This record gives sequence, C-alpha cells and structure tokens, in this order.
Amino acid sequence: MQVAVIGANGGIGRELLPRLADAGHDPIGVVRDKSQFEAIRERGGEPRLGDLEGAFTGTLRGADAVVFAAGSGGATGWDKTLLIDLWGARRSVDACVERAINRFVMISAYKASDPIAEPEAIRPYRVAKRCADDYTERSPLDTTILRPTTLTDDEGVGCVSVAYEYRDEDREAISRADVAQTVVACLENEETIGETIRLFGGNTPIENAIRSND
Amino acid sequence: MQVAVIGANGGIGRELLPRLADAGHDPIGVVRDKSQFEAIRERGGEPRLGDLEGAFTGTLRGADAVVFAAGSGGATGWDKTLLIDLWGARRSVDACVERAINRFVMISAYKASDPIAEPEAIRPYRVAKRCADDYTERSPLDTTILRPTTLTDDEGVGCVSVAYEYRDEDREAISRADVAQTVVACLENEETIGETIRLFGGNTPIENAIRSND
Repeated sequence: MQVAVIGANGGIGRELLPRLADAGHDPIGVVRDKSQFEAIRERGGEPRLGDLEGAFTGTLRGADAVVFAAGSGGATGWDKTLLIDLWGARRSVDACVERAINRFVMISAYKASDPIAEPEAIRPYRVAKRCADDYTERSPLDTTILRPTTLTDDEGVGCVSVAYEYRDEDREAISRADVAQTVVACLENEETIGETIRLFGGNTPIENAIRSND
Repeated sequence: MQVAVIGANGGIGRELLPRLADAGHDPIGVVRDKSQFEAIRERGGEPRLGDLEGAFTGTLRGADAVVFAAGSGGATGWDKTLLIDLWGARRSVDACVERAINRFVMISAYKASDPIAEPEAIRPYRVAKRCADDYTERSPLDTTILRPTTLTDDEGVGCVSVAYEYRDEDREAISRADVAQTVVACLENEETIGETIRLFGGNTPIENAIRSND
C-alpha cells in the first residue's frame, strides 16, 4: 500500500516511515518544508510538501491509506493546537473523503475521551484531539484511532498493552517506536477499523494486542 | 419561556436579559461568579452559578430554552478558546440533551464556515466556533446558529440584514443589542429551527429578516 504519513518528520512519523517500508509498503512522507525532504528519503519515504494551514490539495494523490501523525508540539501556542491538531486533522479527513482514500489512522492522545480530566495544563490539547477524533470517527472513512499514553523515545520492544475500554490504572508510558509499529499492525488488520484503542506500554506482542475482543 | 443565557454577563448576554424579560420570558442568567449576581438581577434575570470549566450540572434545571452567549474574549489565551468557546459549548449542548431542553440558540461568529479565510489572527477562534457549531447542528436539539459579523456597542435599531447563503459583500457591522433582539425573535419563530443565519447590520425589521426564504 501507498501510505501517506502526515507529520512525517515528527516524533512518531520518523519512526513510522522505515517500519512501513520494512513491512513492504510505500511510505509517502508529508512535510511542511523542503528542507526536510532528505530526512524523509533517508527513512525510505517519498517526500511531499503539504501545509495543513495552507496548500494541501493534491498532497495525498495516489495514497491508499493516510496516517495523521502531525502535531503542533509543545513549543508553539494553543493557536497552533487549534489550527494543526484540530483543523489540520479535519482537513486531512476531508481530503481523504474527497479522494476516496478510505483507510485512515489517527494518532490521538490519552484521555482525549475526557478532556477536562486532570491535569489542567493539558486540557486544551485534549479538547482539540477529542474534537478531531470525533470528526474522524463520524467520517465515512475506515478509521482507527490510537490514544497512546505518555510517549518516550525509548527503543521499540514490539509489545504493548491496549484498552478498548478505559481503565485508569493503565498508565505505563509507551515508546514512539512501538506506537509506530502499532500503526503498521493496524493497517494490516481490518478488525481495527472502527475502533478507538488506548495504547500503553506492556508485554503483549503488538499483533496480538490489537486483536479485538468482540 | 424560561430562557437560560450562558454567558449572561458578556456583551451580548447583558443586552439579551432585559429583552427577554420585555418579551414576556423569564430569563435565567448563568454566570461564573457570584459577584455578578446583582448585575443579572438588575437586568431582570434570575442569577445562577455555572462554570463551563467546572461544575455545570444542574445549572440549566427548569429552562425551556438555552442561549449560548459565552466567550473567552480577547483578553485570555487560545487555551480558553478551546476550553470555553469550544468545549464549553459542547458541554452546554450535552447538558441540554441530558435535560431534554430542546431549544438552543448558539451565538457563533462570522465566517466560522470558512475558518482559515483571512485575516490570519482570527483563524484559531473561527476553528473553535466552527467546531462548536458543527456539534450544535448535529445534536438532536432544535437549534438556531447565528453568525454575526463585527460587533459594536451601538444602540439597537431593530433592523438587520441576514444571509442564509454566504455573500462576501455583506460585511456591515451589527450592534450587540440587535444580535440580542434577533435571538429573542428566533426563539419566537420556529422557522429558524435548523437554520444557520449570517447576521449583519441592515435595514430590515428583525422579525421580517429572519423569515426563511424557503
């Protein structure tokens, strides 16, 4: 599959490109800036320009699936949270609908289900992610929403823990590498379509962990 | 009707309470702070505490209709735009659904339909308002969404101009007083249920202006 990764130069995006290539897919790395093209190529991706706040039409052409891994990050203001994490996500979903790219994986965030839960400092971010998730979920696309807990830059271990239902005790941090590997596994498992999966560090091999208990 | 105004001490809320009372309704003024109670009473409203970021359950009890006139305003950060203008609006809609308060009027904003239109500085606000509007519109409530252009503190003139379809040339500013009077007129005209109405300064008596052209 041609898999377009929006936010390909971000923490999870960088881990995702080589894993998609290793799994036999053709990753497309969507970035805002041509200076990032070489880094995308080095990770096995075809670089493309796409600005979630500007020109975006055409960026996703030819893709069979799209992963939204973009985020405004901690160094910008909440205005960018509204423009990138929320509106950029909606634009990405809209672009997929327009181009009939049916498979969509959203990287969301822990407790986006309950944005005004503690801690207070992260509430506005969770509001944006929750609203983006709702839009994704209601779209006609085949969607999977991943809500990882605290992210680390540790090596991937290939194992995670998931919760289809919320359990407050499940708070173990997870590496960006394992989130990325979970994205690959979800793209290859149709059982994850329509699911919102809370994702934690854990001991279950990823392919087994994401199997729905339905 | 008992009409609860969320954001009753804001620019439009203050204009709305006496107009609701004049029209024979019983206004409830929802405010964050008991220090505002006297101001609400002076405008003919029954003051109630309600915190869109905190305790809100029970605030709307007994209401027949709710007007969302709250806004984080220009003096706070974009975090409050996410928490009040977007999440607070969603909480208000949810509270109405829960209590079977079916009539809901949302005070939205000009060009919320196209958030990343110019000018750039207002885009994040429009994203929040658009997402709140979408949530309102999709709810099972009987909703009317008003999208006034630039607001002034001028005296009300009782006349406006509306656009059920977008027309770029219609940019005349409108007084908060006339927006408030339009809310009252909408509550009294079932034709406005399900409509999103762009609102400008103009020369048509409000009751006539809001009559749908369907």
